[in-house]
Amino acid sequence: MAAEIAEQPSAWRNLLAARAACVEIGELIASRAPRFVQFVARGTSDHAALYAKYLVEIGLQIPAGMVSPSAVTVYGARPDLRDVLLIAVSQSGGSPDLVKSVEVGRAQGALTLAITNNESSALSDAAELHVDVMAGAEQSVAATKSYTSELLALYLVIAAWQGVDTSAVDALPDLGDEVLGSDGALAAAAQKYRYAQRLLTTGRGYSYPTAREAALKLMETSYLTAQAFSGADLLHGPLATVDPQVPVLAVVPGGRGGDAMAPVIARLVERGADIFGVGAASAVAELTGGVAIPDAPEELSPLLEIIPFQLMALHLSLARGENPDSPRGLRKVTETL
Amino acid sequence: MAAEIAEQPSAWRNLLAARAACVEIGELIASRAPRFVQFVARGTSDHAALYAKYLVEIGLQIPAGMVSPSAVTVYGARPDLRDVLLIAVSQSGGSPDLVKSVEVGRAQGALTLAITNNESSALSDAAELHVDVMAGAEQSVAATKSYTSELLALYLVIAAWQGVDTSAVDALPDLGDEVLGSDGALAAAAQKYRYAQRLLTTGRGYSYPTAREAALKLMETSYLTAQAFSGADLLHGPLATVDPQVPVLAVVPGGRGGDAMAPVIARLVERGADIFGVGAASAVAELTGGVAIPDAPEELSPLLEIIPFQLMALHLSLARGENPDSPRGLRKVTETL
Repeated sequence: MAAEIAEQPSAWRNLLAARAACVEIGELIASRAPRFVQFVARGTSDHAALYAKYLVEIGLQIPAGMVSPSAVTVYGARPDLRDVLLIAVSQSGGSPDLVKSVEVGRAQGALTLAITNNESSALSDAAELHVDVMAGAEQSVAATKSYTSELLALYLVIAAWQGVDTSAVDALPDLGDEVLGSDGALAAAAQKYRYAQRLLTTGRGYSYPTAREAALKLMETSYLTAQAFSGADLLHGPLATVDPQVPVLAVVPGGRGGDAMAPVIARLVERGADIFGVGAASAVAELTGGVAIPDAPEELSPLLEIIPFQLMALHLSLARGENPDSPRGLRKVTETL
Repeated sequence: MAAEIAEQPSAWRNLLAARAACVEIGELIASRAPRFVQFVARGTSDHAALYAKYLVEIGLQIPAGMVSPSAVTVYGARPDLRDVLLIAVSQSGGSPDLVKSVEVGRAQGALTLAITNNESSALSDAAELHVDVMAGAEQSVAATKSYTSELLALYLVIAAWQGVDTSAVDALPDLGDEVLGSDGALAAAAQKYRYAQRLLTTGRGYSYPTAREAALKLMETSYLTAQAFSGADLLHGPLATVDPQVPVLAVVPGGRGGDAMAPVIARLVERGADIFGVGAASAVAELTGGVAIPDAPEELSPLLEIIPFQLMALHLSLARGENPDSPRGLRKVTETL
């Protein structure tokens, strides 16, 4: 897991060197002019899909939704998907429910795109279009490099569809190397949370998927209870569970999503919460602790801001005497129907 | 909270007596033939919206999604919403982000429908169509009767749009009274979970929103950590956190969603989990404990199956010496931007 976390900047360099494939697919999608986007994914890849949903809703201004796969696989729905782009995201491309969702989607008129970390899989065979995120084989059960490479591939495809300049991505690998330098700080933070039984993660907008993915990594490797809430949803109920014994991990990037976290942070402070922040230096400085992330356009910061949480999950697992490479009860390829 | 839980069957009778308003709106929507449905909601009402998303995807076979309100309210997106039905669900109809989402949605060409527990509100003013779920004033911060009345109103509107027979709903109030008879069993179960720090809830299909709402009630009133996962998502990572010290509350109704839970239950049993079930008598009998729900069509069972979880949240809060009517840190109307 440590090696795969560290490989992320070079994985991004690989994908950027071959970005023409993403651009071509984005332009092809633009030519077909879908009016609605649906995503289907599970686990970590579902968080990459959620990130892309924000890109579609905000950047392309096209309505988007996450498919409930059981509607198709359990209940046999055959929805009318003309004018729909269906994007399936999966590290392995092997989960039967995603394959079935894409097969049905394609038969029902959707333009289908598979995003996988594989040259070929059942999922890429089922879809009309396919992007290989080229992160290289992932051994650790807890997905790390495949996640950020999925984010980057989705960004490149959607930016090409939108026809916007993507030159900011070229700085990402070096910025990623810089964030990896926070490893020591995260090892120290992991000691602080060594005995925490539960914690919350929170973020808004583009950074809400980061909060979700951070919680999943902590659950997978350290078996603690980590709950993710959008900053707004946190105020609608779960705030009651927050007290000084519940650490909060907050994603507070620069930009509008980070700004929208300010009232959420204020309510958490009222409740005496211990808040560890990842994001803009100015926002992190006001919290109990945290890691500053170098400046990047808000829609690209999720690639960088997940890294400290991956490192925290790794170090917390080790501090607790667990094996982050082989979490109990999990398999690398999860087959759900 | 106890009084409002017990009022649910009579609240449903009120709404059923006035169902013509829901039917009229469903028929009007049918005449406009939307091709996509988007939902916008927060907290408990978000779970009612998620239930309705399954009704739309499975019953109407129309693609549906949950809006990320921040795309509009934080990032200023103005999506193209022609051919879209936008449904906002809110007990109070007062949250500014929902009002803004509906105002923008309407200006962008969506047909807009507000579902509230109010004759009039900012949200119903903003939307073209409005349904009052008529559950009566709700005093408890933890929403109970407004939730099931929202489910029923959404069912009636969507069934009328779909043009299907809805006579099965007439049995619901009596079945609800029957489920309320499980109060003593839930009070006993609450003693068993008196000292639990965390628990998981799980369900699939129509019952996944039940699992989500059950977890929220337990968090709001008893401050324990309750995490909800669809049965399939549970196998993609969070299963690692399950051990005999983590009670699992599973929704196992009759029908296809309940059947699809069988492999999930098997994996949980492998991990030694203590499983409390709510659903079909035959499924519950195989678990550590639980409450059987009377037979109802699968798409209506969510109205009944949430009741035992509401009662458990109430009794657990009391057993822990808390006040379920006034959870710490929460306000009845949550205003998020």
